Amino acid sequence: MFKVTFAFENGSVVDTYANAGDNLLEIAREANVAIDAPCSGNASCGKCRVQLKSGDLDSKKTLHISDEEFDEGWRLACVSSVCADVTVLVPDIASAYKSRMKVADLSSKEEIAIFENAKRDIELTGIQLSNSLEVVEVTMEPPTLDDTMPDIERLSRALRKFLNLKRVRVPYTVLRKLPDVLRDNDFSVKCVLRATSDDMFVYDVFGSNEEVIIGGLAVDIGTTTVSAVLINMDNGDILAKGSAGNGQIRFGADVINRIIESRKPGGQKKLQDAVIEETINPMIDEMCKSAGLPKSHIYRMCVASNTTMNHLFAGINADPLRMEPYIPAFFKTNSLFASDVGIDINQDAHIIIAPNIGSYVGGDITAGTLVSMIWNRPEFSLFIDLGTNGELVFGNSDFMMSCACSAGPAFEGGDISCGMRATDGAIEACTIDKETMEPTYKVVGGPGTKPIGLCGSGIIDVISELYICGIINPKGKFVREGRRVKHDEFGMGSYVIAFEEEAGSVKDVEITEVDIDNFIRAKGAIFSAIRTMLSSLDFDVSMIDDVYVAGGIGSGINMKNAVNIGMFPDIPLEKFHYIGNSSLSGAYLMLLSTPAEKKTYELASNMTYLELSAVPTYMDEFVGACFIPHTDLTMFPSVTEAVDNK
Amino acid sequence: MFKVTFAFENGSVVDTYANAGDNLLEIAREANVAIDAPCSGNASCGKCRVQLKSGDLDSKKTLHISDEEFDEGWRLACVSSVCADVTVLVPDIASAYKSRMKVADLSSKEEIAIFENAKRDIELTGIQLSNSLEVVEVTMEPPTLDDTMPDIERLSRALRKFLNLKRVRVPYTVLRKLPDVLRDNDFSVKCVLRATSDDMFVYDVFGSNEEVIIGGLAVDIGTTTVSAVLINMDNGDILAKGSAGNGQIRFGADVINRIIESRKPGGQKKLQDAVIEETINPMIDEMCKSAGLPKSHIYRMCVASNTTMNHLFAGINADPLRMEPYIPAFFKTNSLFASDVGIDINQDAHIIIAPNIGSYVGGDITAGTLVSMIWNRPEFSLFIDLGTNGELVFGNSDFMMSCACSAGPAFEGGDISCGMRATDGAIEACTIDKETMEPTYKVVGGPGTKPIGLCGSGIIDVISELYICGIINPKGKFVREGRRVKHDEFGMGSYVIAFEEEAGSVKDVEITEVDIDNFIRAKGAIFSAIRTMLSSLDFDVSMIDDVYVAGGIGSGINMKNAVNIGMFPDIPLEKFHYIGNSSLSGAYLMLLSTPAEKKTYELASNMTYLELSAVPTYMDEFVGACFIPHTDLTMFPSVTEAVDNK
Repeated sequence: MFKVTFAFENGSVVDTYANAGDNLLEIAREANVAIDAPCSGNASCGKCRVQLKSGDLDSKKTLHISDEEFDEGWRLACVSSVCADVTVLVPDIASAYKSRMKVADLSSKEEIAIFENAKRDIELTGIQLSNSLEVVEVTMEPPTLDDTMPDIERLSRALRKFLNLKRVRVPYTVLRKLPDVLRDNDFSVKCVLRATSDDMFVYDVFGSNEEVIIGGLAVDIGTTTVSAVLINMDNGDILAKGSAGNGQIRFGADVINRIIESRKPGGQKKLQDAVIEETINPMIDEMCKSAGLPKSHIYRMCVASNTTMNHLFAGINADPLRMEPYIPAFFKTNSLFASDVGIDINQDAHIIIAPNIGSYVGGDITAGTLVSMIWNRPEFSLFIDLGTNGELVFGNSDFMMSCACSAGPAFEGGDISCGMRATDGAIEACTIDKETMEPTYKVVGGPGTKPIGLCGSGIIDVISELYICGIINPKGKFVREGRRVKHDEFGMGSYVIAFEEEAGSVKDVEITEVDIDNFIRAKGAIFSAIRTMLSSLDFDVSMIDDVYVAGGIGSGINMKNAVNIGMFPDIPLEKFHYIGNSSLSGAYLMLLSTPAEKKTYELASNMTYLELSAVPTYMDEFVGACFIPHTDLTMFPSVTEAVDNK
Repeated sequence: MFKVTFAFENGSVVDTYANAGDNLLEIAREANVAIDAPCSGNASCGKCRVQLKSGDLDSKKTLHISDEEFDEGWRLACVSSVCADVTVLVPDIASAYKSRMKVADLSSKEEIAIFENAKRDIELTGIQLSNSLEVVEVTMEPPTLDDTMPDIERLSRALRKFLNLKRVRVPYTVLRKLPDVLRDNDFSVKCVLRATSDDMFVYDVFGSNEEVIIGGLAVDIGTTTVSAVLINMDNGDILAKGSAGNGQIRFGADVINRIIESRKPGGQKKLQDAVIEETINPMIDEMCKSAGLPKSHIYRMCVASNTTMNHLFAGINADPLRMEPYIPAFFKTNSLFASDVGIDINQDAHIIIAPNIGSYVGGDITAGTLVSMIWNRPEFSLFIDLGTNGELVFGNSDFMMSCACSAGPAFEGGDISCGMRATDGAIEACTIDKETMEPTYKVVGGPGTKPIGLCGSGIIDVISELYICGIINPKGKFVREGRRVKHDEFGMGSYVIAFEEEAGSVKDVEITEVDIDNFIRAKGAIFSAIRTMLSSLDFDVSMIDDVYVAGGIGSGINMKNAVNIGMFPDIPLEKFHYIGNSSLSGAYLMLLSTPAEKKTYELASNMTYLELSAVPTYMDEFVGACFIPHTDLTMFPSVTEAVDNK
């Protein structure tokens, strides 16, 4: 056995032991050391970089590590095996994907704007913001020798009188505390109830002088990022907001790799733990601290996520999702409780899951569709969710069709050598001077924050600017020289946005031809999906009235640049609307409003699904879209104009 | 810190550490060493005997330990404190009460007779032996690309078709295994269901070629003894039967001491663990092994017990039960599940609790009343349950009245120096030769089993014979001399049934004047309760048509002897019927038959309760009954006759 030490830039270390020949990435996974591995250890993404600090590793050389870097000790963990005691540095650039949590500053109006908007919009459709949870105060006569009714019946009788309902259900957790709470408060209490038309469920009981806020939790479980809001179920106020990388990331960047990992022995539990124990529960902890709300006062949760994510969240075999005929275990379920999956809120809390409509169109899309409001307008709207999978919904108040395409993690910074989520240090916007080829960029975290990578909106800007400035050609290859354009020993070009000296990282923040190629395939998948779906309905892009863009790509997305690279159709820019994380705001509405929840089930069951791979022309569309902006430039007149005008 | 070693007669030891001055009984409780302590450490019962083997103890002398015994190292744990490293022997006579479990041999017809009788009797009243659990086999079409319905909806649809019910509920546990079970069995499965009039709950799913038996568990939680049967819910067959001492015994013999212990820090959990983790779960384990049924295949449980026991079982504050106005937390509850309390059966299994009707008349009595059938006859019947508390129900098909009296643990061998449960080694029957004063006795466990103590029926026989032979007087004092009659230094008399040499114990099996006095008070409580309750209804004992005697006192109870000592009224012997453990057989009926369960709720709500302590004449009745057989001999003509005829 050899000792393997993982050292982090913040000075902390994790020690473990391994046998000669053991794979370093596997060892890291076993030791719960989060090393980013979007390709799940296939040596294709080049992200699992570690730096040898002492001892030795048996590592293969790959294109992802230059000779110079290799000499400096850089290795890919996935192609390194143990041959001695060893200490490796796990750099922060790799752990940018780590489950690093962020609780938002709610004093910023921007942070809560999408929820306010969602509330306003849904109310305008006549859907009420009401749910079945409420706090009811009851005062009972204390028992006497002549009135010996037991506690539970005394409470039930008082509640029945109050709400005129036949049946009162008091779960074990409440029964347990009831004798003490009643006697400590002279039989005057507040109850947290769920009251439906025929019965009443008592979630909790408090002394009548306690202030009781009913908490609710909406969570968007993205393949790459998990976001959540803690709300007041009474009025929908946002009490806290948080986000974190999905801890499952070390088991692969995309859903297919995750499913494969989950089928290994113990894998289902590992994947479930990674998202619940490592990601969501710590977020709940932080959010509740920030809001000053006990975790047990969260009585309902709503999860919106793609089908694979909600299966892995629930610890359910997801293998049938990836194999013909691609069958989920459930579209919706009404029988999931916090105690079932170990979510650290009130153990009797119901967990609502936004409904799936198939293996590749999940609850994130049905929840997002609710928020997009496209189902409430006569105009033809296109809803695009740019996640690790790209999903589209097109339609209006009469019909809706959905489809999904595999965009890969590029929009959230995956599969891109310097890619990262839109968190502190991410370059989110960029312009390039055509003459000097010098960039000007904006970094998340504000002035003074050093850049460490590129998030989705930053990548769109950089590629668009490189193309418009003639630095790269329609195939994404570098065609101009300059101090920021490098070529490695194999001739692969790259453009440096921030040199190592100015960056907050151990290497240049750059974009390579491989990155650009990956991104072109991602945007090509989206554009060809739009065209294919519209064609199948005999529609043309010119007939789109509005485009609602959602996803973690960042609110800074520059629609013109997205059109420039041929990701979105070349239609008037005012038709584009960025609606943020609609999966989360949709989960928020479903959580807050029972009628909105029902509406989402209705939308899901009315939505038709187009399997793109079954459309013969899809592949041709995709090939044509894998250029900047496209092989058919007549589809992008404004881009030609932009090139001419720069 | 000193080392404290508890050694057992079987050779095993438990080591622990304690500070000087720590109480030995407390140390034993902390270390989960079961030392019998019916009086909960008040030095009054004399049962917590241990023998000093090495080292030293700081012990008070008490009447319970003779000088000779003290010299041999015998001490009461409750009045001993640590002053050095010490090793003590915990004798088996003390651990006769220990959670020693016994799984019955079902080839003996006697063991299952009461369940067969209960089934037959209840069916004769027109109550059906049906419940809502069933196994349903369904075969579905496997999904295809054209039929992509998810697993859960596929199953629900198939079940709805089968049972024509609107709503199918599939809990998380089933959802989790569904994808695999469906695919491993070509979509042909067996489901364990609970189907009620408006919905259906799917407990479990299996491949259609598996043999599936729906298990049910009926448990009688007595203050002293816990008994259970594992049954086949389809036909009521007994699959296994077990019994064990209630592990709570080390926290006190009666419910009041248990409640007091439960209010100490961590006490509620300790008491709950003692009955569930230490007593019931190991029984379930053994019974399931003996029946070859997986524990998770037990889908319903019914508990019958007194009110304190069901509160402590559920981990609910029982303090209000013992303090005016004596209010239980619940009479009945429909929201207790196996997972709530950690019972080791299917985690979604419902736990039914036989309804309480007050703090001192609990589910053991309502379940027992169901079995006694007194509610179904025009004749006036008296139902007596001889447990640690004595409870009585009197009435017929028109009315029923109940009352409770504190008999103490004497009927189950508690508060009696050589008392024990009716398990192997217990003397269960005895006659004494009037001339020679020599006894002839019968020991549980059959010929060859050495006597180690006396169970309830044995004590009744011994006291009755001692009285009838003129060896003791009506006050229970010894008035004849002989080799079996001893007097200690304080003049307290005793009668030796088995000398140490013939006994399987470390001392003589005897009965002392203190024991007789304790037993007289127990039987006096019963007799005066009968008289008081009947008087309150303007009834006389001569108007009783039948007496049904239940409880763990042993099937060997000699009714004539019970009349001789003045425990039961002097009415024709053919009116007495021993119906065994009616709490368990009642729980069995409630478990097996939903109509019987409903009937029990109905009986409970129609039964009136008489608080004996509120009846002015009760105390006088009690004082008169504290003689053998009574101060008023005219009430016991047959006893005078028996004395004359011996």
